[in-house]
Amino acid sequence: MARATAQSAVALGGGHGLFATLSALRHLVAELTLDELTAVVTVADNGGSSGRLRGEFGVLPPGDLRMALAALCGDDEWGRTWSEVVQHRFEGDGEMRGHVIGNLLIVGLWELMGDPVRALDWVGRLLGARGRVLPMAVTSIDMTARVRGLDPSDPARTSEVRGQVEVATTPGEIVSVALDPPDPEACAEAIEAVMAADWVVLGPGSWFTSVIPHLMVPALRQALIDTSGRLVVVLNLEPQEGETPGYGPEDHLDALFEHAPDLKIHTVLADVRCVSHPEELDRAVSACGADLVLADIAADGATDRHDDDKLAAAFEAIMAGGPLRG
Amino acid sequence: MARATAQSAVALGGGHGLFATLSALRHLVAELTLDELTAVVTVADNGGSSGRLRGEFGVLPPGDLRMALAALCGDDEWGRTWSEVVQHRFEGDGEMRGHVIGNLLIVGLWELMGDPVRALDWVGRLLGARGRVLPMAVTSIDMTARVRGLDPSDPARTSEVRGQVEVATTPGEIVSVALDPPDPEACAEAIEAVMAADWVVLGPGSWFTSVIPHLMVPALRQALIDTSGRLVVVLNLEPQEGETPGYGPEDHLDALFEHAPDLKIHTVLADVRCVSHPEELDRAVSACGADLVLADIAADGATDRHDDDKLAAAFEAIMAGGPLRG
Repeated sequence: MARATAQSAVALGGGHGLFATLSALRHLVAELTLDELTAVVTVADNGGSSGRLRGEFGVLPPGDLRMALAALCGDDEWGRTWSEVVQHRFEGDGEMRGHVIGNLLIVGLWELMGDPVRALDWVGRLLGARGRVLPMAVTSIDMTARVRGLDPSDPARTSEVRGQVEVATTPGEIVSVALDPPDPEACAEAIEAVMAADWVVLGPGSWFTSVIPHLMVPALRQALIDTSGRLVVVLNLEPQEGETPGYGPEDHLDALFEHAPDLKIHTVLADVRCVSHPEELDRAVSACGADLVLADIAADGATDRHDDDKLAAAFEAIMAGGPLRG
Repeated sequence: MARATAQSAVALGGGHGLFATLSALRHLVAELTLDELTAVVTVADNGGSSGRLRGEFGVLPPGDLRMALAALCGDDEWGRTWSEVVQHRFEGDGEMRGHVIGNLLIVGLWELMGDPVRALDWVGRLLGARGRVLPMAVTSIDMTARVRGLDPSDPARTSEVRGQVEVATTPGEIVSVALDPPDPEACAEAIEAVMAADWVVLGPGSWFTSVIPHLMVPALRQALIDTSGRLVVVLNLEPQEGETPGYGPEDHLDALFEHAPDLKIHTVLADVRCVSHPEELDRAVSACGADLVLADIAADGATDRHDDDKLAAAFEAIMAGGPLRG
């Protein structure tokens, strides 16, 4: 299945969704299907260890960047050990509780080097990472959302919810999301990577707080529209409580186009067992000029996480230009 | 000056004194005069970042171990960068203030691996360290001291001072020091290294809190007495306020023998400009069967820190069996 010429890919997202994509794509680097892999990561997290460090030092939230780096770790004892170390979270009930070693390491490197990208490259070297990890913007971002249904006395009223954590877990219905500041400065290396990529992968992940933010940073959105790289959108396995309750696969696509009407999607990848109305989805995907690939990509017996190997096989088939329709 | 056969050395101490010794001995590893270098480090620190982590996680205090590892870092960009990173201390006024990246990394590795020695070896690999760093004991130790002169109304009265920091900075006169527990379990690998060493280096450093504790761990003291390795004692450049005010060089030697009467010293190394009565010191050194080497080992214009290169040259001369008397 491997192509004669290796290609480059950029995966955009955040949190566990991006971790899954990268865990799959790293296999394609190992097999030389990809010769260049870049992760572009949201920087709006305001919770947990990342939120505390962001508050204390005014730095980017390191957690999603650290997870992406760990996902790309080398496959030998060295890479696996340092990946475990950077992912290690302190427990107990003292001041360090909840902090993650890798977050502290990244913040230390930022303080020392002053250059967020250079510092992340050094953590990548530590891990023997099979790709590069970049922030989507060079300064922290806050997410806000207009949310309906938070006021029991007036269910139609919308109110503002602020903070990625708060947006991701709101019990109300998200009407719209926004970034604060609305026009953060994109990471130049991320723009370059998107423009030079053969393949661009968006999703899976928390749709409003990890996926769509990439379409809201002006220069990054423009690069995603302008790139000649083929865009693969990976749909979530199941709707996410809070952000997207009751959202069908078509709704996920609609939400992307709402933020980037000119987006050209090459392939939509979804799990064959998680799509209840494949014909409807196929129509929606075709309507936007893309191909639908329904493949077995969920972990066995699970509907909440992908299987690395299956997801890798699906990416490989798509990138090899093989039979696209499942 | 390099010998035909490379040799092994163990340096015992803690804090800045050990950092100086290791910074010198690493040159001898680079020049292949030494083919094996081991640092054995005190674990009684109760102050600063180490004290906080020790209190929070019940682990060994990591700070002196981290400093020793940093001193041994590889001499390339990789080693120097990671050495800077592990030595980086957080500032600001938040919860991380005062913590050092390397301390957090070591504690994380301890939690993850459960084996203090294996974890330190991994930090050594990260740094490309030119030697191994071991704790003198496998559990934390508290220092106590009988101190005279703390009670203005009864200057002859002695009272107990507890804690390495408190002992090191007491305004009173230290009459005796003790460990709590009095018989901590030594680190087996440290005992092996001392027994197998061609050279054993003790000092410089805070005499009562970084040097003498090695003579108070029963199995380690016995190894220091039993080893066929030649013992080099490096005297401090100047008396230390708190611990050893008014202590002359001979008093430093006396304090060693008080804790290990059977200790066989091969060479006493002191800075030629810092010894005001060389004849007296020579008599005292000869009386214990050792050779005195007075060499230029202080940093230019300083009486409070050693010069790495000068100290390395002095060690090299001693280990080459060259002219021993300065």
